[in-house]
Amino acid sequence: MQDFLIHPNLNINEQGHLTVSGQDCVELAARYGTPLYLLDEQLVRTNCRAYVQTMKECFPEGSMPLLASKALSFTGIYKIAASEGMGTDLVSAGELYTAKKAGFPLEKAFFHGNNKTDADIAFAMDSGVGYFVVDNLHELIAVNSEAVRRGIRQKILLRLTPGIDPHTHKAITTGTVDSKFGSVIENGQAEEITLQALSMDGIDLRGFHCHVGSQVFEIDPFVQAAEIMLRFIKKMQDTHGYAAEYCNLGGGFGARYLPCHPQPDYVSYIRALAAEVNRICDALLMPCPKILLEPGRSIVAAAGTTLYTAGSVKHTPNGKTYVSVDGGMPDNPRYALYESPYTAVNASRAQQETELLCSVVGRCCESGDILQENVRIAPVQRGDVIAVLTTGAYNYSMASNYNRLPRPALVILNGEQNRIGIRRETFEDLVRCDEN
Amino acid sequence: MQDFLIHPNLNINEQGHLTVSGQDCVELAARYGTPLYLLDEQLVRTNCRAYVQTMKECFPEGSMPLLASKALSFTGIYKIAASEGMGTDLVSAGELYTAKKAGFPLEKAFFHGNNKTDADIAFAMDSGVGYFVVDNLHELIAVNSEAVRRGIRQKILLRLTPGIDPHTHKAITTGTVDSKFGSVIENGQAEEITLQALSMDGIDLRGFHCHVGSQVFEIDPFVQAAEIMLRFIKKMQDTHGYAAEYCNLGGGFGARYLPCHPQPDYVSYIRALAAEVNRICDALLMPCPKILLEPGRSIVAAAGTTLYTAGSVKHTPNGKTYVSVDGGMPDNPRYALYESPYTAVNASRAQQETELLCSVVGRCCESGDILQENVRIAPVQRGDVIAVLTTGAYNYSMASNYNRLPRPALVILNGEQNRIGIRRETFEDLVRCDEN
Repeated sequence: MQDFLIHPNLNINEQGHLTVSGQDCVELAARYGTPLYLLDEQLVRTNCRAYVQTMKECFPEGSMPLLASKALSFTGIYKIAASEGMGTDLVSAGELYTAKKAGFPLEKAFFHGNNKTDADIAFAMDSGVGYFVVDNLHELIAVNSEAVRRGIRQKILLRLTPGIDPHTHKAITTGTVDSKFGSVIENGQAEEITLQALSMDGIDLRGFHCHVGSQVFEIDPFVQAAEIMLRFIKKMQDTHGYAAEYCNLGGGFGARYLPCHPQPDYVSYIRALAAEVNRICDALLMPCPKILLEPGRSIVAAAGTTLYTAGSVKHTPNGKTYVSVDGGMPDNPRYALYESPYTAVNASRAQQETELLCSVVGRCCESGDILQENVRIAPVQRGDVIAVLTTGAYNYSMASNYNRLPRPALVILNGEQNRIGIRRETFEDLVRCDEN
Repeated sequence: MQDFLIHPNLNINEQGHLTVSGQDCVELAARYGTPLYLLDEQLVRTNCRAYVQTMKECFPEGSMPLLASKALSFTGIYKIAASEGMGTDLVSAGELYTAKKAGFPLEKAFFHGNNKTDADIAFAMDSGVGYFVVDNLHELIAVNSEAVRRGIRQKILLRLTPGIDPHTHKAITTGTVDSKFGSVIENGQAEEITLQALSMDGIDLRGFHCHVGSQVFEIDPFVQAAEIMLRFIKKMQDTHGYAAEYCNLGGGFGARYLPCHPQPDYVSYIRALAAEVNRICDALLMPCPKILLEPGRSIVAAAGTTLYTAGSVKHTPNGKTYVSVDGGMPDNPRYALYESPYTAVNASRAQQETELLCSVVGRCCESGDILQENVRIAPVQRGDVIAVLTTGAYNYSMASNYNRLPRPALVILNGEQNRIGIRRETFEDLVRCDEN
């Protein structure tokens, strides 16, 4: 049973090779070299449309999904997102620079980050970013000062902390009151910063943002957060006469990394969330504000696959088997960071029984350089192409040059076509910042 | 008590600012911007000399320390190491390219890695790398083939696994039998690969390598490893008449990250190790082979300091305080990866009481973006310079562009002088590989 075919774009061809979007992984590896990131453009577009169309259907006009750039930022992804009618969420001036370079319509960009520098703020205003998502009072003052200096009113949302714990990994849980992010609702901080924002000449407050976490497969945490946010919005209206235009519920829907994970149906999630949001608004006797969501992982993760070439296969006296590949924690640090689960496949022998229990490890001089422990794949020969699935999110974006390894190329698959989205780094790239 | 002055090159000046090598951290931050890596060249040289001179004193002629490039690889460091008479340990073609670019004498280079590709092997032979450290049988065959094809005999060491656990962090423990590295001594694998190597036309076997781990503050694990290695060498001599020229005991001496860590005295460590190695050789009735050590962390860690600018200071309802700085896990992923301890200092107020208990967190949109939890520093104002100490090893070398943040510059301090060793990345650098 080849239960590793966990995404609709995966298959096995007549040669017994794994295919992505119908394209042969072994041929792609030979043509472009390894390690190699693949990104299936059609799957990205399908996911974008699930959000864009379902949100149009279920939420008030002006509601929209924002691509969470931190999951994957390069010029090509902004072009795809823009053509699908997505907005974008940017967390740094570097992401902004990239979106701008791609010609992304920046009036649909929301500029995030818990610690924007003065230079970031000026650059974002210069670039015409639509909205700032202001994390805290220090930042509000800094944004206001810069806006006043320019004689403008900057549209902003305020990031609030609803106090929800979505029971996911600690490092990617962001909505609890002990988080470094946002102003807390329950102790009055959020109300205070709202009143501050409303009193400032350079600030045009358009609503509120929250984010509960990521890799969430149930709508409950989102519903809980929405209820707290909508009650807060209602309170601001009743107490201070301020009607928020936007309620941004952040990102967080999960992706399927393992056969045992559910196959997520984003259309159903959004419809179910919309039903709850509308129910809450009705109960509060308020119109539903425009809703924003910030999908990152759920747009790009499943569309990504990483191809490696197997090197040595080693059996230890204690019975462990190590399959070494020509990449590792520099191109995918997520197992090292979080012990994140991934599905690995011997793409060269995808039709064979997955009878080899092994750890797929990288080529770095570090024991922690592991891509996945205790996976079952078809027996490996040196030179086989090993695929790691669901690597579209937080792989290229977190990649390093550890052990002075050049970062891989990213090839965009589009039906039967493919093209380079990000070229492979050269050795000369590695030393380009070194002074003589 | 300013107990954060954990390295001999740290002090506080009349302005109450932290100084490194007598240079004012606040001035350096203003001049070069933040985040900023500093590297104290004199401290690097002092550490190199501790190894070079003590090894010359205590071990047979030809013994030498090899700079472990993976701790910090850029052209400038190879120039310093070369001028101090160090060899180098390279783990990738990228490190090799960098050393070559710096004019490092490659006959003193040892080429490591658990999974060298055929391209790596060819590039290293083209470049005239002195020695390959061969990890396993697959690799031995590949190196031999390439050498035979060229009509040369390639000098190599074999990496062996002595089966020692130095009781340090799991991810940086490399000498246990369940490691992905090397051939195991205890089950005969090591002897087998030795005989293979000796029988090959393209291979000139010069000795053996092992590595027990890193951040070790006691010589016991090294002595245990040395004993196992020397017994193996003796056995190869007695059984097969093969006399190893080199015994490479790897790296691993620790650096002081916290005031509670010992101030390491590398000269004493090496002398004590030499006494034990000589004792073991005497007991085995064999001459001591040339000894190699591979210091990385102990050469560069304490010589490095990272400067940040503080942004927001946030107090949560549960009484936690977050100090956000303008860098984080992209320039130093070690807390996120290993919960590594670091000492943080408010460099702008270094003479004040360290009465603020806080977490120093980064600017990434990720809860796990923490530099250090629960540190005591002087109370922080937005704009203060925050120094994180002992960042010379595995910081720049592990840095990423996560959240599309440009990597910091590295400034080399030399007494009262300073110069850029690695320039800061620009936004244009971030998109240079993106295809249009």
